[in-house]
Amino acid sequence: MKAVVYQDAFAVAVEEVPDPTIEAPGDAVIRITTTNICGSDLHMYEGRAPVEQGKVLGHENMGVVEEVGPGVTRIKVGDRVSVPFNIACGTCINCVGAWTSFCTRVNPVEGMDGAAYGYANMGPYDGGQAELLRVPFADFNLLLLPPGTEHETDFTMLSDIFPTGWHGTELARMKPGDSVVVYGAGPVGLMAAHSAMLRGAAQVLVVDKEPDRLALATKIGASAVDFSEADPVQQVLDATEGFGADCGVEAVGFQAHDPTGEEHPEMVLDNLVKSVRTTGGIGVVGVYVAQDEGAPTVEAGQGRVGFDYGTFFTKGQQMGTGQAPVKRYNTALRDLIITGRATPSFIVSHELGLDEAVAAYDSFDKREDGWTKVLLHPGA
Amino acid sequence: MKAVVYQDAFAVAVEEVPDPTIEAPGDAVIRITTTNICGSDLHMYEGRAPVEQGKVLGHENMGVVEEVGPGVTRIKVGDRVSVPFNIACGTCINCVGAWTSFCTRVNPVEGMDGAAYGYANMGPYDGGQAELLRVPFADFNLLLLPPGTEHETDFTMLSDIFPTGWHGTELARMKPGDSVVVYGAGPVGLMAAHSAMLRGAAQVLVVDKEPDRLALATKIGASAVDFSEADPVQQVLDATEGFGADCGVEAVGFQAHDPTGEEHPEMVLDNLVKSVRTTGGIGVVGVYVAQDEGAPTVEAGQGRVGFDYGTFFTKGQQMGTGQAPVKRYNTALRDLIITGRATPSFIVSHELGLDEAVAAYDSFDKREDGWTKVLLHPGA
Amino acid sequence: MKAVVYQDAFAVAVEEVPDPTIEAPGDAVIRITTTNICGSDLHMYEGRAPVEQGKVLGHENMGVVEEVGPGVTRIKVGDRVSVPFNIACGTCINCVGAWTSFCTRVNPVEGMDGAAYGYANMGPYDGGQAELLRVPFADFNLLLLPPGTEHETDFTMLSDIFPTGWHGTELARMKPGDSVVVYGAGPVGLMAAHSAMLRGAAQVLVVDKEPDRLALATKIGASAVDFSEADPVQQVLDATEGFGADCGVEAVGFQAHDPTGEEHPEMVLDNLVKSVRTTGGIGVVGVYVAQDEGAPTVEAGQGRVGFDYGTFFTKGQQMGTGQAPVKRYNTALRDLIITGRATPSFIVSHELGLDEAVAAYDSFDKREDGWTKVLLHPGA
Amino acid sequence: MKAVVYQDAFAVAVEEVPDPTIEAPGDAVIRITTTNICGSDLHMYEGRAPVEQGKVLGHENMGVVEEVGPGVTRIKVGDRVSVPFNIACGTCINCVGAWTSFCTRVNPVEGMDGAAYGYANMGPYDGGQAELLRVPFADFNLLLLPPGTEHETDFTMLSDIFPTGWHGTELARMKPGDSVVVYGAGPVGLMAAHSAMLRGAAQVLVVDKEPDRLALATKIGASAVDFSEADPVQQVLDATEGFGADCGVEAVGFQAHDPTGEEHPEMVLDNLVKSVRTTGGIGVVGVYVAQDEGAPTVEAGQGRVGFDYGTFFTKGQQMGTGQAPVKRYNTALRDLIITGRATPSFIVSHELGLDEAVAAYDSFDKREDGWTKVLLHPGA
Repeated sequence: MKAVVYQDAFAVAVEEVPDPTIEAPGDAVIRITTTNICGSDLHMYEGRAPVEQGKVLGHENMGVVEEVGPGVTRIKVGDRVSVPFNIACGTCINCVGAWTSFCTRVNPVEGMDGAAYGYANMGPYDGGQAELLRVPFADFNLLLLPPGTEHETDFTMLSDIFPTGWHGTELARMKPGDSVVVYGAGPVGLMAAHSAMLRGAAQVLVVDKEPDRLALATKIGASAVDFSEADPVQQVLDATEGFGADCGVEAVGFQAHDPTGEEHPEMVLDNLVKSVRTTGGIGVVGVYVAQDEGAPTVEAGQGRVGFDYGTFFTKGQQMGTGQAPVKRYNTALRDLIITGRATPSFIVSHELGLDEAVAAYDSFDKREDGWTKVLLHPGA
Repeated sequence: MKAVVYQDAFAVAVEEVPDPTIEAPGDAVIRITTTNICGSDLHMYEGRAPVEQGKVLGHENMGVVEEVGPGVTRIKVGDRVSVPFNIACGTCINCVGAWTSFCTRVNPVEGMDGAAYGYANMGPYDGGQAELLRVPFADFNLLLLPPGTEHETDFTMLSDIFPTGWHGTELARMKPGDSVVVYGAGPVGLMAAHSAMLRGAAQVLVVDKEPDRLALATKIGASAVDFSEADPVQQVLDATEGFGADCGVEAVGFQAHDPTGEEHPEMVLDNLVKSVRTTGGIGVVGVYVAQDEGAPTVEAGQGRVGFDYGTFFTKGQQMGTGQAPVKRYNTALRDLIITGRATPSFIVSHELGLDEAVAAYDSFDKREDGWTKVLLHPGA
Repeated sequence: MKAVVYQDAFAVAVEEVPDPTIEAPGDAVIRITTTNICGSDLHMYEGRAPVEQGKVLGHENMGVVEEVGPGVTRIKVGDRVSVPFNIACGTCINCVGAWTSFCTRVNPVEGMDGAAYGYANMGPYDGGQAELLRVPFADFNLLLLPPGTEHETDFTMLSDIFPTGWHGTELARMKPGDSVVVYGAGPVGLMAAHSAMLRGAAQVLVVDKEPDRLALATKIGASAVDFSEADPVQQVLDATEGFGADCGVEAVGFQAHDPTGEEHPEMVLDNLVKSVRTTGGIGVVGVYVAQDEGAPTVEAGQGRVGFDYGTFFTKGQQMGTGQAPVKRYNTALRDLIITGRATPSFIVSHELGLDEAVAAYDSFDKREDGWTKVLLHPGA
Repeated sequence: MKAVVYQDAFAVAVEEVPDPTIEAPGDAVIRITTTNICGSDLHMYEGRAPVEQGKVLGHENMGVVEEVGPGVTRIKVGDRVSVPFNIACGTCINCVGAWTSFCTRVNPVEGMDGAAYGYANMGPYDGGQAELLRVPFADFNLLLLPPGTEHETDFTMLSDIFPTGWHGTELARMKPGDSVVVYGAGPVGLMAAHSAMLRGAAQVLVVDKEPDRLALATKIGASAVDFSEADPVQQVLDATEGFGADCGVEAVGFQAHDPTGEEHPEMVLDNLVKSVRTTGGIGVVGVYVAQDEGAPTVEAGQGRVGFDYGTFFTKGQQMGTGQAPVKRYNTALRDLIITGRATPSFIVSHELGLDEAVAAYDSFDKREDGWTKVLLHPGA
């Protein structure tokens, strides 16, 4: 089959690779209909997160079941499915507790909980930017979708970023009626804003500096806060009668840049602590790492982020972090899409064939104008 | 009346001061029967937290109602009561949401939520290390106790440290059956351990290096982890089959010392991140401050604590912080004392008269052997 | 002042009565700008719930503060406020636990928790279908609104039925993405449907037989289920792939009628048990009473409702009941109105002067065509 | 192998039956070390719940894994395990939501969610009162225990009644510090009382009339309420300052008898509504059925239970019901047993060989003195 494989920093290729097969009784093989390029794929593309040469990339996958192992009893060949980016066993303490992002059994590295398709440090699993994908523990992992092709560009957001944005609001302990500030208007931040609206936020403030992204935020009912124009904290306070937002979502991560382009890992956390009111929650789904060779300081390279912890404590705030357990949310989000209440496809900028992946990685990585979210259709 | 007043760093005195009076219709005046010296009183005593000369200290107070204002309808003269250390209005958004530690109306400093008796930066309220104490919003703040003198040394823990320890387990999202690690076996840490046992922990591990404190921990059913003997993280992992504790409580604060006595503000947070398993909760009730002139580094002086945030995120942990909203818990804890299930008095080492306060501050501050918890009885 | 007073069954009058005054330091007097007639006012109007002659009716009130007692510190003269129908002390165990509908201190009848304005069995408090209203414990009870007259017809729903409908979804344990069935498209049922949409329901099914009410349901995005056309349970099952709704709200009460007009107190509960899936929640905000002299059977007269409990148990369902604690929700709902996300005024059919109240009661009680919700403006 | 099989009303036999085998890749076969007779086995024994002749009884099972299918990846031959009485697929909406007692896939009867071993109406699965037991979806269903034989009589309570009692407190929304009333001091009621104590109840009141059962209640720290001596509601009110318990557990079921021995299906629910305070929760784990041919009235035969619903509503109470999802709790309860905090074996009265099962059923059904809980050890 054809697949997008990693070659080196800033080099991916579409190559012929062997078809995946059923390796265990619980496996399924999926024929991919849509697979997205994720912002986090760029960590690998840029060589900042090490991944082995020849690995098939892609963890945002959906398609139709092509084959199932003899232990699969729920999923059937021909089912249209969404594949959560987390690979999960379904029976360990974390899976049973709805924390599939921290499955204790799927990552062979000792002490490392959680795995994903085609991703650095997340186990030996190939990704789905390909014609076919092997899915372990298929009965547990796969989400059934209505047959056909309807809502394809919405459903494809169910594998990662829509649940990830939603998870941000959950970690932030958002309640209906809240004012919510979201830092970052990339795909995940926009999904967090969309989620907050769906969950009954009174007001959603989205902080970024890119006009096209901020325009998308306002399109779904959020308010844009342009941090290149003025201090975002002050803008949030002004919008909340000086009180601060009830809760906040971090959708930027450790590579946060100030308006001049300089990297400050603690900048967004500092702003959140100041933007969110006393007792408020902060949900962190922007990625922070324990080791980063490209970090601006020694401390940052060790994952040490010296944000204003004293104020965080003094304000009695709470913070939740980490990769989203997609399965906890994707059934509800699917149903919201089916009834037309959720439309996460509003961020899609490009739909391409698999062969166009190399150019797409290049353009997306350069953040060329209008490259918000790229979908690949291997069958097309 | 007589009261313990602050004079200067390392100098308090028992002096005659004017009796407090009813200043507003909702006030009550309490005749103090028991008032404790808290570890956090020592921040002021040592001059590390600035407080005005002449201020009456003491925020852990209980007694009998002496007088009530005309707007008081629930509390009556003669009622025996516990006084939560948080002063709260009962009607602002935080009070109504059970966050009395962040009342938006009682602290006259703009943007500062929360107030307390006799405490630095927590409003102009005198403390209760005295014969009498004025209590604002008495109907809301005061907890009724059974008349008489029974359980006095247990009930006196209801004003602060028992709810504070309990809050630590709550912020840590502790569930029955959990293994819980508590860093710090001072009064608050021991109360957290006692709380965890009462809430159905399967196992409670208490980390400290003082043998007398660790002995108190084992007395209530917890297991002692002596960090002067070996790496506490490894000891916690060993006690949990390498898995890590389900959740953890920070009861040390920014003045954490390593075994050699050197101060490391990030040390306990680092240990907690490593001791607690993926997805686990961390409750921080040890105090961190936004500004600290005595801090070991510039960053620490600004409240910046560069702990291992990358691992915290990678493990998908959650963290709650801040002063405890005493009122949220004190009714339940009172009832557990009345039925004999909770006995927080196990930490009491000294019961003294008010006149002995000066010497008591000195001994307690020097952490003299066996000075675990000091109660003052002004009437005695 | 002028006020609507109860005279006898089917007889109310607009009369001159003495102005209310400040009776306790915590009281306020409100000048009513809008006061609604509630469906539950008709229980008294019809003589089915006994109320003393001369009582001023009206528990859905809002207005501007005219006067405050000396113990009032938060609310000021001139503030525009919504008055929750529950009168609550703010300091008893239920108030502190956000159950203001069951305040243990405001109802003088022994063993009866909870009070309301102008309502049978809910204490000696006059209602607000009048020019002025006395509000006890004003600091705790009153909700601040933005000054002016904007959103008046939306804000007036905050005193009762919007929070009551919302409470129905809360008692039903509704989660985002759920399918929700609401029995009853009266004002409370429509508010429950509006609430479910705001909270992120995937699908809301509203069961009734009145076309105008069902039309209002569809107007806010719900789906209409006409039980006069076919078995509502089967219609709900058909709309949920045979599975049943995730949760349900009872907004009818003990006077449920079948399509032929016969009263069956157990009918709606039976339908809910069958319409909601295993493990689903049922929130009951339609009123059931412990004694009812007009009941169709002896058992019903004693409040005994012989619904299909065996199936309820076998399906592992959960049920919550009772009057809504308005204060728990009204801040969030106010904020949703301010930002334009909630528009509960969509049910308003009539805005009248106080003098028109007598005719309004008559028409509303006869359920004349189009009399969905009546607002009275005493000052107009 | 030898097994206890159902023959007819009041007739079971220990017979040779074929060994169970691996029928699907996810199956395991367990060699039973301990299997209990449950009070609900008596519904079948008495012929009140129809079950096919030749069915192997027994749903409270534990043992050692003898064989696993090729799709089993977590459980290994030789593992000591507890088998939850609910059979669950692990991947349907209810299993994923921690409601394994309502698995939508394991019961072949249309519209019936949930299955169990050796039980009427709960699917075609044989029970474990036998030497061997087939366990479907073994990776998901089986709970690992420490190897060896330690805690055998405690661990055997993990398959049903300890989690069932715990579930009662959960459905009742019990919080630490609560007063809890439990109706019924049979094995499940005693487990609910034990659970309430472990979860930090301030006071647990257990209502029954059998002195030996009440004695067991007091042994674990609860207070006995003998309803044959005086009205139990009044006794509960007296023990709670007239206020009522904070929450309550129903552990009796539809066959409730008054002191004279007459059956009243609504009696215990009535008492709970009166014993529990306003806003309190009621957890119902005593069994109620949708059809009962032996019921005292037509309505009861249809599962209609005409309890005092009007008061239930007026008091704003909440009620949860149904079979316990064992898996949700058994890990925590296992850990509490391992550390010695929970000792559910305190109810065990008899440990017998499998051959003694016939006599044991007879004595247990007659409720002969001292027959509280019977364990069978097939291998002994």
